[in-house]
Amino acid sequence: MSRVYNFSAGPSAFPESVLKQAQAELLEWRDSGMSVMEMSHRGKFFSLIAEELEADLRALMAIPSNYKVLFLQGGASAQFSLIPQNILNGKTKACYVNTGAWSEKAIQDAKAVCEVVVSASGESGKFTSIPDLSSWAIDTDAAYLHYTSNETIHGVEFQTIPDSKGLTLVSDMSSNILSREFDVSQFGLIYAGTQKNMGPAGVTVVIVREDLVGHAAKGIPPVFDYAQQVKNGSMLNTPATYNWYLVGLVLKWLKEQGGVAAIEKRNINKAEKLYNVIDQSSLYRNPVEKTVRSRMNVPFILADEALDKPFLAAAEANGLFELKGHRSVGGMRASIYNAMPESGIDALCEFIKEFERSH
Amino acid sequence: MSRVYNFSAGPSAFPESVLKQAQAELLEWRDSGMSVMEMSHRGKFFSLIAEELEADLRALMAIPSNYKVLFLQGGASAQFSLIPQNILNGKTKACYVNTGAWSEKAIQDAKAVCEVVVSASGESGKFTSIPDLSSWAIDTDAAYLHYTSNETIHGVEFQTIPDSKGLTLVSDMSSNILSREFDVSQFGLIYAGTQKNMGPAGVTVVIVREDLVGHAAKGIPPVFDYAQQVKNGSMLNTPATYNWYLVGLVLKWLKEQGGVAAIEKRNINKAEKLYNVIDQSSLYRNPVEKTVRSRMNVPFILADEALDKPFLAAAEANGLFELKGHRSVGGMRASIYNAMPESGIDALCEFIKEFERSH
Repeated sequence: MSRVYNFSAGPSAFPESVLKQAQAELLEWRDSGMSVMEMSHRGKFFSLIAEELEADLRALMAIPSNYKVLFLQGGASAQFSLIPQNILNGKTKACYVNTGAWSEKAIQDAKAVCEVVVSASGESGKFTSIPDLSSWAIDTDAAYLHYTSNETIHGVEFQTIPDSKGLTLVSDMSSNILSREFDVSQFGLIYAGTQKNMGPAGVTVVIVREDLVGHAAKGIPPVFDYAQQVKNGSMLNTPATYNWYLVGLVLKWLKEQGGVAAIEKRNINKAEKLYNVIDQSSLYRNPVEKTVRSRMNVPFILADEALDKPFLAAAEANGLFELKGHRSVGGMRASIYNAMPESGIDALCEFIKEFERSH
Repeated sequence: MSRVYNFSAGPSAFPESVLKQAQAELLEWRDSGMSVMEMSHRGKFFSLIAEELEADLRALMAIPSNYKVLFLQGGASAQFSLIPQNILNGKTKACYVNTGAWSEKAIQDAKAVCEVVVSASGESGKFTSIPDLSSWAIDTDAAYLHYTSNETIHGVEFQTIPDSKGLTLVSDMSSNILSREFDVSQFGLIYAGTQKNMGPAGVTVVIVREDLVGHAAKGIPPVFDYAQQVKNGSMLNTPATYNWYLVGLVLKWLKEQGGVAAIEKRNINKAEKLYNVIDQSSLYRNPVEKTVRSRMNVPFILADEALDKPFLAAAEANGLFELKGHRSVGGMRASIYNAMPESGIDALCEFIKEFERSH
């Protein structure tokens, strides 16, 4: 078949031009005589790729020079434990805001390392809203305040950076990094798996203010100690070289698109189109409070659950894949990251209107 | 330029037919409408890839059914710490055999987790031999005996599986897994990064006897707990999906080559050719005792260090890349894993003879 529109929550769609470039270079990168996946990570060719990767990410996010950028393995899930192990720095507790499934995982894993203060939780409202900032219980003895900037399962996204009342701010940006502008200087640490807006699964980006580095818990495995990885350019162990290269290609594509500000405008437009169609229908609904709806992940529920299967089958017949919602919330979900073109949104909007007309 | 012969120690050369298949399928895998790197790891397409990957590895290595197979992240280096954290099971010490740079790293990282008994060490002989088994100090109170089956830097390889005197045997097989036959049932745990004989960097294979699973240290991050990953099919966190696919392609190529027994014969032949040329020359020498020379990594030293640079430059001009030895031992090193064709060995042998004639 021809290529479909892929609404997977992650791993997720790539820009087609990136895939074509990777394809063209697969047997030989530039004039190197070898594929990127065959290159020594310490060789002259891969060193260029690694340098450009970091430089492009720094440029796209305007990362200040007092921040270190790491490209690690293990995904955001590994960081759930490794962040407190690295940055508690003698303190015994950390504050977490609970806005959905991914916050909950971060909280659960941090609890094995330190005391967790849940500063706010959207659980009573089934994670369809974010508790008002004025109600947050922030413990000033905590080492940091953690929040999940976008919840892929519940479709809830922070529209501004919360005020951490002086605590070091830590954010899991796995699903909205590079989709909107962030002032990095407001954070102590930003982390993200790459499999949504940055490329393939297999790389975890950690952007960390340098004063937070060097205080890891005693006995932490060296490869998980930020200070060791900073010192070794994220190459204390062999990095996932081909994944770095693919992330680099996606960053170059994003620069060609005009950078983060430009893609943010397109993401706003794409999300508005889709939410409008859902809101104007009587068959579909999105349960999330309008002010915190995610631009990246749009869950929607059909009024009659019996229509779920026919909906998914008809969608696939129309080239619209991976629309099934997460098993924990049911219904549908369209993940529309940077790489989803507007034509994909238009096709989805047309389809859901047509399905409503015919059912 | 055209593709070169790449003697990198890892990441390292791929079979060209695997690269061509990956290239052909890059935009669309089979009839899926998407690239493998875009697939949800929980979707029907990737599930097939994951199932075939494990089945092919089990078939190639004849892995008994009471062993679990995991595909993790972080490389062998992460396992240096995670193995004792997972399998000490209440014991406080482990035995390690020190045969070179990689054993030393494994020992160093394990020391942060438990007491390490160094049962034998080749250090006094600069790691050019392996201490006789009869001299090994094996502590029967230890949880396991660890050895590095092949040392990529020093070029030393065990030619048989050592007798662990009843201790659980653990082996870092990163650089010779699938290059020769191993009786898996003699091991408690085998681990290997994939970037030498199995594919790209970014996946760590752990083959572990099931009775060793489920005894992880309290507070270990869930993604690093073998039991959690076994329960979740190595998908507790999002796996490095595209890397799994590439490893799968390499395994299918290996099956086409006749499997491990067939490739082992070819590896013996390839290594013999190269060692013969070195031994018959007066310009080059390999310092390793003949009985434990590695079939995978062939270090050789030029009689005159001043010739190192001209040698490397002339080699590159002849399409022979990445022959520089590791900085800790100097000289040259040819890594000749499964994917290095015999034609690459022949070209290298011709070149080193020609270089000797002309210098």
